[in-house]
Amino acid sequence: MPKSEKYAIGVDLGGTNVKVGIVSQEGKIVKKLSLETFANIGPDEVIAQIKKGVGQILSGNKLKIRGIGIGSPGVVSPKKGTVENPPNFPGWNKINLGKILHKEFDINIYVENDANAAAIGEMIFGAGKKLDSFIMITLGTGVGGGIIFKGKLFRGEYGAAGEIGHMSVDLNGPKCNCGSFGCIEAYVGNNYLVKRVKNELNEHRESKIWQILKNDLNLLTPLIIDEAATSGDEYAKSVVKNMGMYLGATLASVANALDIGTFIIGGGVAGFGKPLFDSIQTTVESRVLTPIRKRIKVLPAKLKNDAGIKGASALVFYKS
Amino acid sequence: MPKSEKYAIGVDLGGTNVKVGIVSQEGKIVKKLSLETFANIGPDEVIAQIKKGVGQILSGNKLKIRGIGIGSPGVVSPKKGTVENPPNFPGWNKINLGKILHKEFDINIYVENDANAAAIGEMIFGAGKKLDSFIMITLGTGVGGGIIFKGKLFRGEYGAAGEIGHMSVDLNGPKCNCGSFGCIEAYVGNNYLVKRVKNELNEHRESKIWQILKNDLNLLTPLIIDEAATSGDEYAKSVVKNMGMYLGATLASVANALDIGTFIIGGGVAGFGKPLFDSIQTTVESRVLTPIRKRIKVLPAKLKNDAGIKGASALVFYKS
Repeated sequence: MPKSEKYAIGVDLGGTNVKVGIVSQEGKIVKKLSLETFANIGPDEVIAQIKKGVGQILSGNKLKIRGIGIGSPGVVSPKKGTVENPPNFPGWNKINLGKILHKEFDINIYVENDANAAAIGEMIFGAGKKLDSFIMITLGTGVGGGIIFKGKLFRGEYGAAGEIGHMSVDLNGPKCNCGSFGCIEAYVGNNYLVKRVKNELNEHRESKIWQILKNDLNLLTPLIIDEAATSGDEYAKSVVKNMGMYLGATLASVANALDIGTFIIGGGVAGFGKPLFDSIQTTVESRVLTPIRKRIKVLPAKLKNDAGIKGASALVFYKS
Repeated sequence: MPKSEKYAIGVDLGGTNVKVGIVSQEGKIVKKLSLETFANIGPDEVIAQIKKGVGQILSGNKLKIRGIGIGSPGVVSPKKGTVENPPNFPGWNKINLGKILHKEFDINIYVENDANAAAIGEMIFGAGKKLDSFIMITLGTGVGGGIIFKGKLFRGEYGAAGEIGHMSVDLNGPKCNCGSFGCIEAYVGNNYLVKRVKNELNEHRESKIWQILKNDLNLLTPLIIDEAATSGDEYAKSVVKNMGMYLGATLASVANALDIGTFIIGGGVAGFGKPLFDSIQTTVESRVLTPIRKRIKVLPAKLKNDAGIKGASALVFYKS
């Protein structure tokens, strides 16, 4: 590694684990570790775990670290450094993570919403490196989104922009956790998807999913659906195609509203094969307004393993 | 009028009429006229009509004119001055209106899409005067949109942003003229709305709309539906409430994606009474994500008569 190389710490704050890593300016992970978040015990314990993780990763470190980036769930004010009401963090309310960690480590701290951090990660290190503008969609338990416009994160009036997962594709559709109806998250978010497929599988006894799971529906995950689809299972193929249709319909609406034609899809589902991406692309093209149609590109995210750590560290390189 | 007052010419290019006016920096119309567009005869005739209208309004003028703004349907490149494929202008393709008019009148020309011009008009002269960011929706034959973010028009990658009318609220909804399905335009655009209500009225013989129309369904317009609703007609009230629900569902999606919480509704339907605005507001509040909820404002446009001329003239004050 050249001596001039610069480094940042990325902290991926999740409901289960705090993942911490040192990342080079080229996006390579030099060192990483993972601790339990202990979100249920309360915010003091979570903060202690973050400090512990960062402390451990810094112990013995001789690299020049430019800052610490934190990707957090919830509503984040990067300016102030606060994190508000992260889901599944009981007792949290509003906490100034930026201030607390700056006091502890005396280094620049950059806090950002995790979906926005993912978008910045793809822009700095991944599939968005050569792109001026794109929409990042992160498919996981929730469906996150981040809007990159002309090389900058579009944050809206108060920093809450990018919630593509809570755009509705059917105003009378299934109820979403957020309280609205027919949000794309309520169709393709992991839990919703797995629950729906579990229900439907009883009408599809012939599906290979049953064999893969050895009849234990509790083992069902989105990637198993994709595995079955890739092996030619008709029912699984129809599920994947449908996911693409729902996602595609949402992205066509986004493209019409924003005139941004490139989409990067990340999260667990980004491990899905070509059929999902083909279905999304075809759907967007068939639904978007003509002037935008030929510019539509649907790309898989490049940051896969450790995307959370890398995205968080990218905040440092993006902002400093 | 103070001598320092500045003026601009606004040209509202419509499929039926070219409306031209001189507008003061305060948004007052000093002089105006209207000519037929003759769109069916072809682009040369349309251009001749625009020149004629501007020529007539300038004849005898002694005010200092800072420029000419043109609000046009179709895809507009304000940078180049071109107008591409305006719907209902046969034989048009792509024409550089900016260049042609600059050559004719030797004055700064500002060409913009009509929905964007409406948004800029509200920002400079209307309900958006004191707002930093808002989404403008223009309800007419089509449903237009314009995004104002931090005092600037958000144009997207290639200038086509703001097409809120072609965001889908039901991916399996009615077919829209644009080729997609369930676009909000396919629910609340004048023609779609009138057609649907005409069909439904046979099941609502008791509706006051029948009396207002003296049984001639061909006279039905959106404002007549509002008139019946205001007078307490239950069926008409349900139509207005439904319009608000469809619009509200769309605006909640927009607010979640962009974190912009203020909406200005213009066009013919902006003449509707409180019930429509109440229905939109209630729907957005019930569907939008919590952090944005308390910031939602749905306002009627202030520019009503001559909104097209004023919006076009506002382009001059906005850009110069």
